[in-house]
This record gives sequence, structure tokens and C-alpha cells, in this order.
Amino acid sequence: MYDVVVIGYGPCGISTAIYLKRFGYNVLVIGKDKGALEKPTIIENYYGISSINGKQLIEQGIEQAKNLGIDVVDAEMLEIQKVNNYEVKTTKGVFEAKAIMLALGKSRAKHPKAYELEGRGISYCATCDGFFYRKKKIAIVGNSNYMLEELNVLKNLTSDIVVFTDGKPLEVKVEFPVVTDKINEFIKDELGTLVAIKAGEEVYDVKGCFMAIGSASGFSLASHLGLAVDGENIIVDCDYMTNIPGIFAGGDLIGGLMQVVKAASDGANAAM
Amino acid sequence: MYDVVVIGYGPCGISTAIYLKRFGYNVLVIGKDKGALEKPTIIENYYGISSINGKQLIEQGIEQAKNLGIDVVDAEMLEIQKVNNYEVKTTKGVFEAKAIMLALGKSRAKHPKAYELEGRGISYCATCDGFFYRKKKIAIVGNSNYMLEELNVLKNLTSDIVVFTDGKPLEVKVEFPVVTDKINEFIKDELGTLVAIKAGEEVYDVKGCFMAIGSASGFSLASHLGLAVDGENIIVDCDYMTNIPGIFAGGDLIGGLMQVVKAASDGANAAM
Repeated sequence: MYDVVVIGYGPCGISTAIYLKRFGYNVLVIGKDKGALEKPTIIENYYGISSINGKQLIEQGIEQAKNLGIDVVDAEMLEIQKVNNYEVKTTKGVFEAKAIMLALGKSRAKHPKAYELEGRGISYCATCDGFFYRKKKIAIVGNSNYMLEELNVLKNLTSDIVVFTDGKPLEVKVEFPVVTDKINEFIKDELGTLVAIKAGEEVYDVKGCFMAIGSASGFSLASHLGLAVDGENIIVDCDYMTNIPGIFAGGDLIGGLMQVVKAASDGANAAM
Repeated sequence: MYDVVVIGYGPCGISTAIYLKRFGYNVLVIGKDKGALEKPTIIENYYGISSINGKQLIEQGIEQAKNLGIDVVDAEMLEIQKVNNYEVKTTKGVFEAKAIMLALGKSRAKHPKAYELEGRGISYCATCDGFFYRKKKIAIVGNSNYMLEELNVLKNLTSDIVVFTDGKPLEVKVEFPVVTDKINEFIKDELGTLVAIKAGEEVYDVKGCFMAIGSASGFSLASHLGLAVDGENIIVDCDYMTNIPGIFAGGDLIGGLMQVVKAASDGANAAM
């Protein structure tokens, strides 16, 4: 039996495990993919590391944990059950723990029509890339609170923003023009850079497009476990514990700045 | 004139500057020493970097900032005055800014008699080193809230703790034995490792000793500026702004976990 099973091996999960391990706790980390960092994005705003590929950072973190003697298992978490302790059912067996740390992150859902334009006008992170589109005309794709959070970052940089819901109903209030037609095409120039978006029959010229299509992965889990949520974020107390005693959460899942450094800091705090 | 002058070039200050710069703001960082990290300590709990010397991490951070085109000046901050904007008087001249970020950290005051035993039984960080003294008899030196915070970490690891106020009055309530006599000697064995503490005429056997003598450096500044404080921490709102509009603070100065990752995260959040 483990003291703590951490679910997710991104910055939050690994940071949690490092702190716990150094305090002498027996920790298992379960992870299955690189989440939001599995993008062709270079991270240049993480203190102490000048420039690193998202995927490489994740791998480096997993190595760091393993070097400290932390067990890391590549598996998908299927279910968490409370018996006497917690039982975490995964694709690689069942693991028992006294406490659970949820650090699954939020995957930024991709748009099927936008793959080839990633890094060429399509971005998945307003905080990271917003500045490159300062005072330019941009689009944001999304319809929920997650879109609103990204929009709040972008509106400091430009006032020329169009919101595309891609055929979905707008769930939040925004102060910018909204296009509810389905997106038919991301139009590129001869250099392969985004220049316009075709939604319905209309073509909208834009210099950049931010994808903020919320992912429900963490939340379907939350609702299954009965975790209290606020919009798309799991609610935690000042010790990072959810409403269920023994189940903690941190990183993107609990909202706030969706950045590596904040997720890693959440992990350290939750471990304490 | 700068948009923001950041005071302190540790993890919090540099992280603030990185985020601000990437958003297109004109930032100056002023720093004068490596603060709490200028110790012979190896950091092994910062996500993404397996092992690094504190001083080296600080230097790496400064390099990272300079590579992004951020101005970094080695100078001591002498005074901050509000005229129309803020004027920061330093040993290298006066700099003007629209906003100020205070990231001075807290230097863990050293005990003059304990220098040669650092890393040999004397530690300045319960979170970092506490585990090595699990279930052993240890001492903690201090008399204030900072000592209490460190004590709260240590008491999870051992119940055999003696508090030494080193001749000062105890300002907080603790559940452990307290020695108020002045410390006369840190006694070492033939290998140069701490084995006992002599306070007054009494000798106390200990396996380790944690220094938690709060430093007032940031606080003399705070009282000069009229910043609201809670004990030894500067009070900030959820945007990391102090009670004085335009003056922000983060890292050790505002309390919470005194760790690199938390300080760097504060910086990112404050920049936003």
C-alpha cells in the first residue's frame, strides 16, 4: 500500500511526489500522456530553464522522480473507490493508498481542422503566445468559462477580437463580437500561415487564433467521485484538499494560471 | 521610465520579470545578493531540475532574464518614493517605474557560532532537510513566527524537539520544551558533525539543529513604505498587490511555503 497515489505525471503531479518522497512518504505516480504540454510548443517562461520543449520537460520531470526512488507507472486511471483506504483501478492493476492527489491537468482540446497551423497562427495558450498578436486582429475559439479566462488575458493585448463558438451555444457573456456558425476552414497563405477563418459562409480575416475549447476529462472524473466543482475547476481548500477528505487536487484542474510554474507550486503546497 | 521595477533577482523577481517581458512590458530587475539561496545547499525539489546549487540557480535565472532582453542591475535598493510614478533610489542611480514588484525574499539570519557546521547538522530549511532527522532529537533556534512555521514542518517528522530562543524572549506559543538561555557553543564530534548545543551552562545532545532566526530586512522596508503586514509577512490581495496601489509583492516576503517553486509561481501570478 502507498501513502499517496498521485494521478498525473505533469508538473503538478511530479512536484507533489518529489516533496512527499523527500518527507519519507511512499508515493506512486500514475500517468498516461503529456496532456497540455504535448504540443509543438517551446516553454520559455519557466524559471530556471531558459528554453525547453513541453514533452521534454515532462520526460525530465518523470526522470527526476524516478531518480529519487519514486514509483512511476504508465497507466490510465479507470476508477477510484473508497473502501478502507482508496483503491485506484488502472489499466495496469489496482493500487491502494491512504490519500489521493489528482493532478490530471486540463487538456486543451484540439480543433480537427487546425492541426497543420499549430505554431503558424494557431495557439493553445494566451499567456504564452498572446504577446505575439499584440494590437492585431485575432480570433478565439470556445464557448465556456475556459474561453472566458483566455479571453481575459488576450483583451489586455488587443481590442480586436472575434469569438467563434464553432456551432456551439455560448455559455458565458463576452464583450466582443461572437460568431456562432460552425468553422468550415482555417485559411492559410502560400507560406502556410493562418490568414482567415471561414465560418458558415462568411470569411473573417485574422492574424492569429487561440483555441480555448475546454476539455471535460478531469470533470467527468470529478462528477463521478462527487467532487465539488466551480464551473470547470475542482474546488479545494487552502491545503489543496477537495470536499472529499483524503482526496487532494492541484494544477490546471483547480483553475488559476495554467502555467507549469503554478502547477508545480500547487504540487509542493499540496504535498505539505 | 520602466513599466515595472522588480526588486530582487531570486526566483520570484526573475519569474515576474520573465512574464512581464513576454507580455511586452519594459522591466528592470534590481538585485544585490543571492538571499536565502546563498547557502552551501543543493536544491533537489525544484520541478524540472534534478539537482542544482542554490547560487547557480540564481545565476541561471539572471542569465535567463538577460537573454530575454530584460535589464538587470546589480545594486542595492535604498528607497522607494512615490512622486507621479515610483522612484527607486539605488546605489547605481534612480529608476522610475509605473509599478513596483517587491521580491526581496527573506534571508535566513545565520548564527555567528554555527558557520562551520552548516550542512553538518545545522540546517536553514525544515522543508528541505527535515527528513534527514526523522524521529531524531533536534533543536530549532528562533523566537518568532518564522520559527513557528519551521517548527510546524518539523513536528511531523519527530516529536523530540527543543526550542532555543538564544537569550531572546519567546514571542509565540509552542508545545515543546524551550531553552531561553543564550547559546554558547555548537559542539561537534571529531568528524566535525554537530552533536550537542551548550546554552547557559547546560549541554543538550541533538542530532540536528534548524536555524529559524527571522530576518527583518524586508520588513524594515515594509514599515518604511507603510505596507500592511501580518506578523513577518507582507499582506497582498489575490492579485499580489499590497495595500499601496502599484506596489506588488511575492515570494518569501508574503509568507507561505519558502520554496523556489512557490516563489517563482508567485512571480508569474503577480505579473499577470
